[in-house]
Amino acid sequence: MESLVELIAKKRDGGQLEEAHIRRLLAAHADGSMPDYQMSALLMAIYFQGMNDAETVALTEGMLHSGDVIDLGAITGAKVDKHSTGGVGDKVSLCLAPLVAACGVYVPMVSGRGLGHTGGTLDKLEAIPGFRVDLEVDRFCEIVGRVGTCMIGQTARIAPADKRRYALRDVTGTVESIPLIVASILSKKLAEGIDALVLDVKVGRGAFMKTPERARELAEALVRVGTRAGKRVTALLTDMGTVLGRTIGNANETAEAIDVLRGGGPPDLVECTLALGAEMLVLGGAAADLASGRAALERAIGDGRGARTMERMIEAQGGDPSVVEHPERLPQAPEVSAVLAEEAGFVAGIDPLGLGLSAVQLGAGRTRSDQQVDHRVGVDLEVGWGDPVREGEALARIRAKSSADARALSARVRRAFEIRADPPPPRRLLLDRVGV
Amino acid sequence: MESLVELIAKKRDGGQLEEAHIRRLLAAHADGSMPDYQMSALLMAIYFQGMNDAETVALTEGMLHSGDVIDLGAITGAKVDKHSTGGVGDKVSLCLAPLVAACGVYVPMVSGRGLGHTGGTLDKLEAIPGFRVDLEVDRFCEIVGRVGTCMIGQTARIAPADKRRYALRDVTGTVESIPLIVASILSKKLAEGIDALVLDVKVGRGAFMKTPERARELAEALVRVGTRAGKRVTALLTDMGTVLGRTIGNANETAEAIDVLRGGGPPDLVECTLALGAEMLVLGGAAADLASGRAALERAIGDGRGARTMERMIEAQGGDPSVVEHPERLPQAPEVSAVLAEEAGFVAGIDPLGLGLSAVQLGAGRTRSDQQVDHRVGVDLEVGWGDPVREGEALARIRAKSSADARALSARVRRAFEIRADPPPPRRLLLDRVGV
Repeated sequence: MESLVELIAKKRDGGQLEEAHIRRLLAAHADGSMPDYQMSALLMAIYFQGMNDAETVALTEGMLHSGDVIDLGAITGAKVDKHSTGGVGDKVSLCLAPLVAACGVYVPMVSGRGLGHTGGTLDKLEAIPGFRVDLEVDRFCEIVGRVGTCMIGQTARIAPADKRRYALRDVTGTVESIPLIVASILSKKLAEGIDALVLDVKVGRGAFMKTPERARELAEALVRVGTRAGKRVTALLTDMGTVLGRTIGNANETAEAIDVLRGGGPPDLVECTLALGAEMLVLGGAAADLASGRAALERAIGDGRGARTMERMIEAQGGDPSVVEHPERLPQAPEVSAVLAEEAGFVAGIDPLGLGLSAVQLGAGRTRSDQQVDHRVGVDLEVGWGDPVREGEALARIRAKSSADARALSARVRRAFEIRADPPPPRRLLLDRVGV
Repeated sequence: MESLVELIAKKRDGGQLEEAHIRRLLAAHADGSMPDYQMSALLMAIYFQGMNDAETVALTEGMLHSGDVIDLGAITGAKVDKHSTGGVGDKVSLCLAPLVAACGVYVPMVSGRGLGHTGGTLDKLEAIPGFRVDLEVDRFCEIVGRVGTCMIGQTARIAPADKRRYALRDVTGTVESIPLIVASILSKKLAEGIDALVLDVKVGRGAFMKTPERARELAEALVRVGTRAGKRVTALLTDMGTVLGRTIGNANETAEAIDVLRGGGPPDLVECTLALGAEMLVLGGAAADLASGRAALERAIGDGRGARTMERMIEAQGGDPSVVEHPERLPQAPEVSAVLAEEAGFVAGIDPLGLGLSAVQLGAGRTRSDQQVDHRVGVDLEVGWGDPVREGEALARIRAKSSADARALSARVRRAFEIRADPPPPRRLLLDRVGV
């Protein structure tokens, strides 16, 4: 039997690891007989040599079975989730899950917290007074079955091998490896006990994948490997060259997601929600095609079923459901300060990374995973891509815990807006689709 | 200032690390703020992306200055050492150092122990009753100045950064990287306080470098980087497609090296010693050219000055100098058992790896660094490359601690000899030379 170092060398030299090898490596890392320094050397070798689909499936399933897999077998009906690779202002999950559930597809959702410039669904949900994301698995299953959707945090028992390896990748320069990203995403999502998955692969300055080519490569790998692991999977490539919607923070993003369920919301956020939701309804068998899926979602917005499902979910998870009808009851920042345009023109660029990091500086996000977030603070955009602006018009509003904080961020927020004499080409939100 | 993970990513992406970066990385690893898992990821990135000469010089000097540099400034005269990349039966240092010292060039030698199929100079020396290799640096300097040569083991204070990193490379599949090998060799050798260095880069089945191309690549890198670090460096590429000399073990190898100093010894060992010694005399300024260097060495063998220098070195290091005149006083194996040819023909191949591992199994070497060696045991070759053999003639003699041990290895030793009907092409020992 090969030693661990022989397996590292095999991958280093471009060889293919067998399923049994991958199981052994994961087991050895789990029981401590493979120290982190050997795992990080292997991860770097994988970074350079890649993994084929069979290896990536074996890695995904090995990580998946390192922990508990939620059993939703008691619920008859399709269970479909959505995963986003993360962007600035991406609050889609908050409106999407109740809307899809209202259309008859169960949405069990295990989400993450924000880190760096991208926010996290759990932090946004916790802006709702009383809302709890740390439910037991039994309670999670009960709420999914009764309400149609439930959103909780990753427990220590879901894909623990991924959690430890992700922390290691983060500090060893091995995050940006497509097979490792695929196995990390899919192992966590398949642990939810879902039948199908829609992926929102974000592309651009505010996203993890900076180019359409690289994003498409990731999307294709996710669809291929997810399909080989026995799930129905499709992926959309969506633009993250600017902020999604008009809010960055927690309470303000939650309010904007609620607005979508009530028939409002910015057009790009509505479009993203409908496009992903239609995929979920088709995968879940609740719509024959994307057009009828989209029509069903629009009806669930129009007649308030989406908003009602959100209220029931909030209530089931201990929160105050009245925020759906009264979003002003969400926590408000004590200081709101406008950032004004210094010249007239058109909004030809919005830097999502700069704005995301500004929100983190205000306290809406984290630079280390042990930090607390302030749900009240963030940045609201007053203008969108291509909008004309006059000199002195508000570009954004900073929601801060103090006027000193607001002043400190003002220049940085202003710099995130590029104002030009001519309007930019129209923005394309949906860039591509990968799937059957 | 870049974080450690940013420096890892820089190298991963093919960037060049600056001298200050390399100093920071070494310091961080030394003080524990860079854990082994980050260093191993960096080492794997270096494996794939390489390092240019400036980076390799910076790494060498950083590692060199991680510990003590021996100060031989009190000795007037050139100090020159030889380093071999390791082979089976390579006892050249034992006869080379006294011989070169006898010709007027100081040879301060810090050596290693055997690991795996290659033996170590220290283990061979310790076959001499009483011989001590763990001398203090002061005593080492005194003996070099008085006798002309002294051979000790690496102390904990010489290039400790290399010691720790080598252990890490060994278990993470990052040994076979030319810049890492170069920095490891040169940092240890430059710590001896030498002016010049001759490298014996072994090529073939019994060596670390299996092909002449790869060996030449290593030799060129060693010469370039050593020169940039301010030393005079030349390298010879020598054949390790078979055993060097006729002995593998410890006491038997020491006896064979003594034989060379007394005017005997197998032709390949004599040739290797003279070729490397001539380079050392030229680099040390004691010979005008290689031919006169070789003639000087032959005179020092002929008139016994080499043997006398060996006696003085042994005496200075606490050993019994009478072994030079009476090699039979070296420890003898209780069991000596012949391995006979099963067919007639010519010796067309000798597998140095198989024989080296056989000697390890007999107890002459180590598979783990904490093991003790038995100085008495090993394998003596009775025939050499191209020799005719008759059926029933002895191919080798196994020196074992028991007849059971000898029997157990008999078939493996026999398999190491390839007997063919026709003689093989003559062996070329000196394959190439790199240097000014």
